[in-house]
Amino acid sequence: MSRAPFDWIDGESERRERAGLVRTLRPRAADQDLLDLASNDYLGLTRHPAVTGGAAEAAHRWGAGATGSRLVTGTTALHTELERELAAFCGFEAALVFSSGYAANLAALTALGPHGSLIVSDAGNHASIVDGCRLARARTEVVPHASPEAVRKALETHGGPGLVVSDSVFSVDGDAAPLTQLAAACREFGAALVVDDAHGLGVLGEGGRGALHAAGLAGADDVVATVTLSKSLGSQGGAVLGPARVVRHLVNAARTFIFDTGLAPAAVGGALAALRHLRAEPELAARARSVAAELHGRLTAAGHLAVRPDAAVVSVRAPSPEAAVAWAADCRAAGLVVGCFRPPSVPDGISRIRLTARADLTERQIDSAVGTILRTAPTA
Amino acid sequence: MSRAPFDWIDGESERRERAGLVRTLRPRAADQDLLDLASNDYLGLTRHPAVTGGAAEAAHRWGAGATGSRLVTGTTALHTELERELAAFCGFEAALVFSSGYAANLAALTALGPHGSLIVSDAGNHASIVDGCRLARARTEVVPHASPEAVRKALETHGGPGLVVSDSVFSVDGDAAPLTQLAAACREFGAALVVDDAHGLGVLGEGGRGALHAAGLAGADDVVATVTLSKSLGSQGGAVLGPARVVRHLVNAARTFIFDTGLAPAAVGGALAALRHLRAEPELAARARSVAAELHGRLTAAGHLAVRPDAAVVSVRAPSPEAAVAWAADCRAAGLVVGCFRPPSVPDGISRIRLTARADLTERQIDSAVGTILRTAPTA
Ligand SMILES: Cc1ncc(COP(=O)(O)O)c(C=O)c1O
Ligand SMILES: Cc1ncc(COP(=O)(O)O)c(C=O)c1O
Repeated sequence: MSRAPFDWIDGESERRERAGLVRTLRPRAADQDLLDLASNDYLGLTRHPAVTGGAAEAAHRWGAGATGSRLVTGTTALHTELERELAAFCGFEAALVFSSGYAANLAALTALGPHGSLIVSDAGNHASIVDGCRLARARTEVVPHASPEAVRKALETHGGPGLVVSDSVFSVDGDAAPLTQLAAACREFGAALVVDDAHGLGVLGEGGRGALHAAGLAGADDVVATVTLSKSLGSQGGAVLGPARVVRHLVNAARTFIFDTGLAPAAVGGALAALRHLRAEPELAARARSVAAELHGRLTAAGHLAVRPDAAVVSVRAPSPEAAVAWAADCRAAGLVVGCFRPPSVPDGISRIRLTARADLTERQIDSAVGTILRTAPTA
Repeated sequence: MSRAPFDWIDGESERRERAGLVRTLRPRAADQDLLDLASNDYLGLTRHPAVTGGAAEAAHRWGAGATGSRLVTGTTALHTELERELAAFCGFEAALVFSSGYAANLAALTALGPHGSLIVSDAGNHASIVDGCRLARARTEVVPHASPEAVRKALETHGGPGLVVSDSVFSVDGDAAPLTQLAAACREFGAALVVDDAHGLGVLGEGGRGALHAAGLAGADDVVATVTLSKSLGSQGGAVLGPARVVRHLVNAARTFIFDTGLAPAAVGGALAALRHLRAEPELAARARSVAAELHGRLTAAGHLAVRPDAAVVSVRAPSPEAAVAWAADCRAAGLVVGCFRPPSVPDGISRIRLTARADLTERQIDSAVGTILRTAPTA
């Protein structure tokens, strides 16, 4: 071999090291003794016996895998059951389950953003939406964060079919999108609205029915939602919810549906059990929100900067990437796991520690978490 | 609302209907009484008690979901265990697990095909590779199927870093890529080789170690493999195998790793149990290949056209898309599930019925399948 093809990676890796941006994996143990405010398990269901039991039972009954594309051998009656119940719960006509929320976003944008159309995408949208826009044949216009006015302007200057896409709750700061105004802008110009409700399902709306249900937009014939089964529903997978003709179109046109193995039965069974649990205990959604409000209230009262949470995500600003990393590390040393966002994951370049509220946190755990965060805060 | 944004879908749907290309989902029951020659469960492990037990136990022990990105809370010791054993089994230095094989391909191509580089991609490559090429910042050159000469020409005319990507076994016809010649072409021009071993893992190589192990290329410092956990390993998920520095680079740079929830513990546990089972019963791999050879031999002896299978996929040509659909439907009516490939899924426009051999098929089942296929064959 005359040259080593991957040598360029070493340069990248050195650059990352100099910038203090190296990421490494930190495997956790099954019984780790840390207080977790970093996961997306908003309702605390991922280890609930009903949910793990639903996953285990599905594996025993249906097998460990789906065995093929959902168009060949990979659709089970269990997938259909989840699709029916999820659509009904969120107030949509139909639903289609994917192997991940990432795949669901790629599917929605590529299949609903054909050649000649325009996708208008919020600058704060999730990476999977960004990748979906890049894969779609449509032209994409990225507009400033949470600006219905900018959306309106983008649609105005375009002739053909339009589609506006937004997170319902933005992962970085936990702020909600102006869905009512976005829908109004869409309707003014005959555009479709696609909303990624990854962080809204289970947290927002009556009993956790999601941001679109809360906004009175669920089930409209010009609105599509994408969701993930991996956050409030404690499992894995994603889904697209919308009019039946949209779902039928995805079955025929979405490459991440057609050419991907169906979601594993255990993940379907886990999500279904979590959904049923949430239906039986609708107060879980409000509880997740009130825990977030309490975390926000106590941290801002102590002088920290954090956007008021619209759902269950609370991001607290740190003075620098290094300070954010050190803050999160000090929390962990004190028994508390928090997330840490820094460039290049944050488009605005502002580093943060990121807390996710969970419905099952006790007041003592909240006290302890707040105490640790304040005690370890950077002094800058 | 002045216009209905999704009206254009109806036109697409009518076009599809006129062309006889509408796809619909057909949910299966847990106890369906059909002989399955359509799934990718090559070793018959997806319903093996050790594998479903591994999945169920992992759900109970670790939870139904991974709860976050693998960089935040989503990496468990179980993920690490699978990565270690998979890398060791296939003969690579390191491995990284993803939520699907699709996501693994997107990751490998986007992270290893930076701006200024060239990706040379076989015309028969899987959709997830095609999408990976489209998402990568590299320029992509698609070359004729299985042509090391065309690969050499493409690399020759390019100055910067190059990467050649190929399926090891092509999904449509089940033919193997000329890996030795591809590697030689890569080495001549200092390019990297990325091979999608989705259909090779568990089937090819000593004890199912895969196509790269069989070709003596596993573990080389210029070779990367992507695999799926959803075929021979009977579960869900994917992995990238390669030099440790490549895996570290993916952890830092691959968007479908960083911004995707980790693979669900049940899927990890199922794949791990399947891998251990295969290690204990290495003859399963050869059995899957010999079942394929037998199917091919008997069907071509009866006058059908089918490429000699290099792994476990046997595709039999049909005279038209309609004939392929009718053939598959007649097989199903007779109790046999076979796949059906037709445009636009087949780039060459040739429709096929597609059989997948399974290591656990009995001689009686093979007899019955061959009998049904011959009896229902189109007469054209
Ligand atoms: C807003 C948003 N959309 C989509 C996804 C992707 O979902 P999944 O992890 O199920 O692939 C995530 C997080 O992972 C997310 O935060
Ligand atoms: C060649 C090939 N690569 C990748 C994939 C994607 O793997 P997964 O289904 O695990 O996403 C598949 C099939 O699904 C495949 O056939």
